[in-house]
Amino acid sequence: MKVGVIGTGSVGRTLAARLAELGHGVTIGTRDPAATKARTEPDAMGNPPFASWHAEHPDVPLGTFAQAAEHGEIVLNATGGSGSIDALTLAGAENLRGKVLLDIANPLDFSQGFPPFLWVKDTDSLGEQIQRAFPDARVVKSLNTMTAALMANPSQLADADHSAFVSGNDADAKATVTALLRSLGHTDVIDLGDITTARGSEMLMPIWLRLFGALGTPIFNFKIVR
Amino acid sequence: MKVGVIGTGSVGRTLAARLAELGHGVTIGTRDPAATKARTEPDAMGNPPFASWHAEHPDVPLGTFAQAAEHGEIVLNATGGSGSIDALTLAGAENLRGKVLLDIANPLDFSQGFPPFLWVKDTDSLGEQIQRAFPDARVVKSLNTMTAALMANPSQLADADHSAFVSGNDADAKATVTALLRSLGHTDVIDLGDITTARGSEMLMPIWLRLFGALGTPIFNFKIVR
Repeated sequence: MKVGVIGTGSVGRTLAARLAELGHGVTIGTRDPAATKARTEPDAMGNPPFASWHAEHPDVPLGTFAQAAEHGEIVLNATGGSGSIDALTLAGAENLRGKVLLDIANPLDFSQGFPPFLWVKDTDSLGEQIQRAFPDARVVKSLNTMTAALMANPSQLADADHSAFVSGNDADAKATVTALLRSLGHTDVIDLGDITTARGSEMLMPIWLRLFGALGTPIFNFKIVR
Repeated sequence: MKVGVIGTGSVGRTLAARLAELGHGVTIGTRDPAATKARTEPDAMGNPPFASWHAEHPDVPLGTFAQAAEHGEIVLNATGGSGSIDALTLAGAENLRGKVLLDIANPLDFSQGFPPFLWVKDTDSLGEQIQRAFPDARVVKSLNTMTAALMANPSQLADADHSAFVSGNDADAKATVTALLRSLGHTDVIDLGDITTARGSEMLMPIWLRLFGALGTPIFNFKIVR
């Protein structure tokens, strides 16, 4: 399946590499490809420069946000939440029309330090904001409740005996995302309901962040025992 | 251990019965014992009248909020979140001084229908509000992330292979609550940190409510796989 990854941070890189490894045709998109390629310093999050990652993944072409979105049958929003609407606007509503838009971002505001706050919650969600901004895209919120390494390779923890969630208004789009998640190794994908249920999964962030502190590792995940 | 249970709804009854069964000396408290005893109709939540429960649990004396709090070495806030500060005020700051105050309530606002909203979240929590209102109590937030039947009898689901959380400023109080939880059958009690981490556990409610809808049963729980 052709996948367009929007965002070249650690989430975008991790998923792009894994999806390419599984045989998907992946294009990864950035605001300014020439600038992204030219960078030689780690980014603000401490990720190595894109060029060093790209040297190991030459099978993943780098394009603009629009080129990545145009390429994808599934478009994957792997940008930081505060920049998601802008990045998807640059990707172009016309390139998202009818597409499955897998939204992985969380509405985290780091401006006050750690832990970050949610700038939208409980009565609205980033997933809903994106669905409203791009009404012709079929938004599915998923994977935002775990660290990138587990999104891409859930089997590395407890033989993947933990849960992922999907939220969205389009049943076919959720089925497509669920199949993609299973191909990554996810064994338990729970359909929470329509896109308003993204409020619930985004609101897992505060306890996720505290668990990260308490456990001293991001390699943990929620399992819904039933 | 002497336990004072504040609140005669289903959470208070379920925990009072289980703690008495385990040999703790339990007093359950209500605003107006005579009125509670006299009721013959189910309450607003559909619970049978208190008298019919009490007939099966004559070993649990009914008192006022203040009598229950005075009795307890541990005081258990099992009131609805919107009434917790009022009920604890009636229980009396002097009866809470130095006590472990196990806060199980969630700040759920049902006034707009279902699903309820959280009336405090992310930048504050009900647990913190209670700690600020009763600075001499040693507040521990716990058990608020699961249905009452699992609070009291976690072993009924997956041999108790799921998680509970504690949040609080006093390490000894958290150790006391953790021991009480283990006596109920909880196998995995995670210390999230100080009382501000109650924000995280209270913010599990929105996804809990959606999971309740998706799964069709309240008998499920979060497990932190690591």
